[in-house]
Amino acid sequence: MLSKEEKAAARATAVRLYEKAGVVLTDSEKENMEVADFGQGDLKNTGLGIVTYVNTERVCAKEMVLFPYQTCPEHRHIGAGGMPGKEETFRCRYGLVRLYVEGEHTAVDPRSPAGVYTVFREIVLRPGEQYTIYPDTKHWFQAGEDGAVISEFSTKSTDETDVFTDPSIKRMEA
Amino acid sequence: MLSKEEKAAARATAVRLYEKAGVVLTDSEKENMEVADFGQGDLKNTGLGIVTYVNTERVCAKEMVLFPYQTCPEHRHIGAGGMPGKEETFRCRYGLVRLYVEGEHTAVDPRSPAGVYTVFREIVLRPGEQYTIYPDTKHWFQAGEDGAVISEFSTKSTDETDVFTDPSIKRMEA
Repeated sequence: MLSKEEKAAARATAVRLYEKAGVVLTDSEKENMEVADFGQGDLKNTGLGIVTYVNTERVCAKEMVLFPYQTCPEHRHIGAGGMPGKEETFRCRYGLVRLYVEGEHTAVDPRSPAGVYTVFREIVLRPGEQYTIYPDTKHWFQAGEDGAVISEFSTKSTDETDVFTDPSIKRMEA
Repeated sequence: MLSKEEKAAARATAVRLYEKAGVVLTDSEKENMEVADFGQGDLKNTGLGIVTYVNTERVCAKEMVLFPYQTCPEHRHIGAGGMPGKEETFRCRYGLVRLYVEGEHTAVDPRSPAGVYTVFREIVLRPGEQYTIYPDTKHWFQAGEDGAVISEFSTKSTDETDVFTDPSIKRMEA
C-alpha cells in the first residue's frame, strides 16, 4: 500500500502532466485524484492517476494520467446483473499511449512490466487519436517517454468487477 | 441554410477557440466539424460547433464550441423506444458558459437571443467546472465574452429527437 507521501508525490507529478496537456482541474479534483498502484507498490512501472468527472448509472468520464513508460495492467470489463460490461473510448490528449488489445500479435518490442500479459495487438495513440474498447476485451496500456494524458468516455465504471489477467493485481485498496 | 463559405469561416473561428483551450483535434475532425445554426441563419447569435468523438448505442462524447455570446437554443432530450432520454454532463474547458435549466428563476440579466426561452435557473461554468443535465429537462446555454469550449459526456446522442421550445428551431438541416 502506498504511503501518504508517495501518493502526494504522484499527485504532484500527475498535476504537472495535466497542466502540460492543458487540462484544467479544480483544486478538489487535484487533491482527491486517485493514485492506483494495483497492489504492486511500484508506481514507477505500474499505476494510473485518475480524475473521475462523472460516473452515473449510465455515463462515466475520466481523465487519466500515466507517467513515462508507466503501465495500466491487463484487464477486461465483464458484465454483471444482466448488464453488458463497460464500453470505453480512450482519447489521447497529451504524450503517447501504446494500447494493447486482443487480436493478432503486432507489438514488436512490448515493454510489459513484471506480471502476466497475454495480448499484444498494439494501437499507438497520439494526441487527438482515439480507440474504442468493447466489453469483455482484454487490454492494457502504457505511456511513451513523455507520459500520457488520456480522456476516457464510457458506460458506468464499476472498477470492483474488473478482471485482471494477473491474479496478483488488486484494483482497489483493501 | 448556411453557405459553404459561412461554414468554413465558422470552422476556422472554432478551431482557434479549440486551440486556445488546448484541445487537439485531427485534421479530419477540424474539416468535418458540424456547424449547427438551428435553422436561424444567424450564427453570430445562435449556433454551436460540434466535434463528435464517439456516439455508440451506449456512450457519446463531444467537444462543443460557442463563439462569444453565442447561444445554443432551449431544448430537452426526450426518451424513445422505451429508453430514457439523453443524460449529459457539460464540463467547461475554456472561457465561460452560462447554462440555464428548469427551476427557480435566478438569472439576473439573461441575454437570450430572439426566440422562445422559458427557463432561467442560471449555472455559471468556468474551466474545470461541470454540471449534469438529466433527461427531459429544458436547458439552453450561452458563452461569455471570450467564447467557450465545453466537453459533453452523455448517453447516445439522437439529435433528431431533441424537442426545442421554439417551434422555429430546426436542429438538423433538411
